[in-house]
Amino acid sequence: MDIVEIISKKQQGLELTDEEIGYVVAGYTEGVIPDYQMTAFLMAVYFKGMTDDEATTLTLRMRDTGQVLDHTKIEGYKIDKHSTGGVGDKTTLILGPMAAALGIKFSKMSGRGLGHTGGTIDKLESIPGFRVNLSEDEFYKQVNEVGLAVVAQSGNLAPADKKIYALRDVTSTVASIPLIASSIMSKKLAANDDEIILDVKVGSGAFMKNVVEAEKLARLMVEIGRKAGKSVMAILTNMEQPLGACVGNALEVIESIETLKGNGPADLEALCCSICAYMIMDAKKVKSLEEAYNMARGTLLDGSALAKFKEFVRAQGGDIECIDKYSLFQPAQNRIPFKAERDGYLERVDALEIGLAAGALGAGRHKLGDDVDHSVGIVVYRKCGDHVKKGDTILEVFSNGVGEVQCFEHLNNAITIGKQRKITNLILKVIR
Amino acid sequence: MDIVEIISKKQQGLELTDEEIGYVVAGYTEGVIPDYQMTAFLMAVYFKGMTDDEATTLTLRMRDTGQVLDHTKIEGYKIDKHSTGGVGDKTTLILGPMAAALGIKFSKMSGRGLGHTGGTIDKLESIPGFRVNLSEDEFYKQVNEVGLAVVAQSGNLAPADKKIYALRDVTSTVASIPLIASSIMSKKLAANDDEIILDVKVGSGAFMKNVVEAEKLARLMVEIGRKAGKSVMAILTNMEQPLGACVGNALEVIESIETLKGNGPADLEALCCSICAYMIMDAKKVKSLEEAYNMARGTLLDGSALAKFKEFVRAQGGDIECIDKYSLFQPAQNRIPFKAERDGYLERVDALEIGLAAGALGAGRHKLGDDVDHSVGIVVYRKCGDHVKKGDTILEVFSNGVGEVQCFEHLNNAITIGKQRKITNLILKVIR
Repeated sequence: MDIVEIISKKQQGLELTDEEIGYVVAGYTEGVIPDYQMTAFLMAVYFKGMTDDEATTLTLRMRDTGQVLDHTKIEGYKIDKHSTGGVGDKTTLILGPMAAALGIKFSKMSGRGLGHTGGTIDKLESIPGFRVNLSEDEFYKQVNEVGLAVVAQSGNLAPADKKIYALRDVTSTVASIPLIASSIMSKKLAANDDEIILDVKVGSGAFMKNVVEAEKLARLMVEIGRKAGKSVMAILTNMEQPLGACVGNALEVIESIETLKGNGPADLEALCCSICAYMIMDAKKVKSLEEAYNMARGTLLDGSALAKFKEFVRAQGGDIECIDKYSLFQPAQNRIPFKAERDGYLERVDALEIGLAAGALGAGRHKLGDDVDHSVGIVVYRKCGDHVKKGDTILEVFSNGVGEVQCFEHLNNAITIGKQRKITNLILKVIR
Repeated sequence: MDIVEIISKKQQGLELTDEEIGYVVAGYTEGVIPDYQMTAFLMAVYFKGMTDDEATTLTLRMRDTGQVLDHTKIEGYKIDKHSTGGVGDKTTLILGPMAAALGIKFSKMSGRGLGHTGGTIDKLESIPGFRVNLSEDEFYKQVNEVGLAVVAQSGNLAPADKKIYALRDVTSTVASIPLIASSIMSKKLAANDDEIILDVKVGSGAFMKNVVEAEKLARLMVEIGRKAGKSVMAILTNMEQPLGACVGNALEVIESIETLKGNGPADLEALCCSICAYMIMDAKKVKSLEEAYNMARGTLLDGSALAKFKEFVRAQGGDIECIDKYSLFQPAQNRIPFKAERDGYLERVDALEIGLAAGALGAGRHKLGDDVDHSVGIVVYRKCGDHVKKGDTILEVFSNGVGEVQCFEHLNNAITIGKQRKITNLILKVIR
């Protein structure tokens, strides 16, 4: 095998064989292929794409460079849910307990936040005492007993993807649908769940800015799953504005608890119930989606999801007192309101800018390894389409005195008040 | 400046500023930009191209990383000729003395052969005693006194190009017209000649395989020259079959001497006279191209070019005895004829395959630093369009027992005898 010939073949838009793709993945992971030749390969893929077969091979070869988990140790129907990343996206914290309350096993390896998007692991770490690292035995034991566990992603899941992603990040080759799809799926397929539900975010706060691109990505991931013999479905959801009201780690955990208590914002509750309804359908517990939706919502109304959340937090060492006493989360020092400058409809509450604003306060990371301030963030009280009057508080900033100027610059960019009342759908498309 | 943003801009096909291109060239040359990011940049240029302004800036920034020669030390009208590389291309050895015989200063830094193409410096080194390295003072003194000097390219001409070319070679980013053009022109513009004539080879034995691509390259190089304030012209010439009869270092020198004596093959003599005629026109010595052509040819007929060659060889330490006594060139041990297998017209005498066949014997290099056997090579007695009878000797192999099997494999691929009498033009286009 000659890497220069493989690069050249891809430059011409020809389909690579399994052996050629395997050679690239193994060669790069083992250090036989240097960074510059891998970059040439990735950039050729960026421009020329990959067939579904190529992307599937790339996914599986990357998966196989690391540990493939033995989820057969989990009894019953097991589902993984993955979000492509957004602003204010705390669905895992709500969905997990909902699913577990219905007897569906929900086990998840999650990431930390990077850039303007948050990470489930950072959010969980705002709960006093919460442990995000469990041994394999602890993990499986907890999933079987509680029905739910969320841990930090192991270093040995698809190490090829980790190395390749780091290179893509510094060579402007991130924005390639087959590379994104294979990166996500290489880690998802390293577990052995019965079903994978992908929440593909679309809009300003998401990696995919429009539905056409998001649908391409979703279809490819579903197809890779199918070719790998897994049941995968994707839900395209709106990320033009933040999901729910809260952005920031502790704030999002509190909002999740409120949602589990039945007091959550309408969009967040609806999304969690919808995804959970698909999970219920797949677990074959009911026949109609409507019935499934009501079952899902029932777990919020009857307290069973909240009870599972309590079990889950306790099992991972977290202080369950905080579930009823939010003051146990470290509070931010300052609360600063952001008010409407004129009367009108909220035309834009830009998710990207809100994410960057929260990041400026210290809620997120600029680069891997940065510290995160769990207490800071933003609470957005109004949604797109709402009417506001001059002087109304649109949102509040929770800060510890860091990055406020930069934060408000982003907030000024985030909000547009105008004459049009625009309403956007939350769920844009379901692909399976 | 952020290299990832510059790569991204080029991926989108946007025009880069002078500052951005300058940053890339300086950053890479100084080691601030690593190989992998430079590769990403080069691959983006491969797919998205460059505007003429961008290519000019790239050329000049690469030139300025090294020495810019002070050719003002040369008195009179000074011309450089550059070939993009072919098989059997010994025009420099003939044109130089022709130009010098007409009072045009011909000074040239030449390269060594690589791959299937030969290099002027290797050819000259087959002359016993010939020195290809002169000091700067020696070089200028010789050009002023003899009118002609050819030396090995200095390591300090456009070092950025040298580093970038080495990276392109291993990342499949050689075949990009703006990158080829800027690579060639960065070195050409490092001298201060009055005129640069580019011989852009087209066909199987050349880097440019078709006229459309070759014309794009030629036009871009002429435009880069114009933007840099230099007079540049380009001649597109046929490289489907070798130029002249001889391929191999000493063999090509002997053929050059024969041409200087007026006994050269028709195609080689015609090309040298044509290029020389353009030189004469540019040096403003005559008004019609026909008159210029005759003046050029006159230097072959009256012995003045041969006399200049003798002066040139003597000045650079070569044994001028060999000019009349070819046995002083180290002879090859074996002469093996390659005969026609059937009657018919020669439809193909493929330059690439002939070049590879000579390379297999040791006439060329696979990689930089390889040794070259000056005595081996191939003499092609028949041209495309000639009629041959079964058993006629089409060509002869001059070997020292190395690589003969591989050589004959290439020769079998090189020759097609058929029913069609195809005649191709030697000069395909002139661009200025």
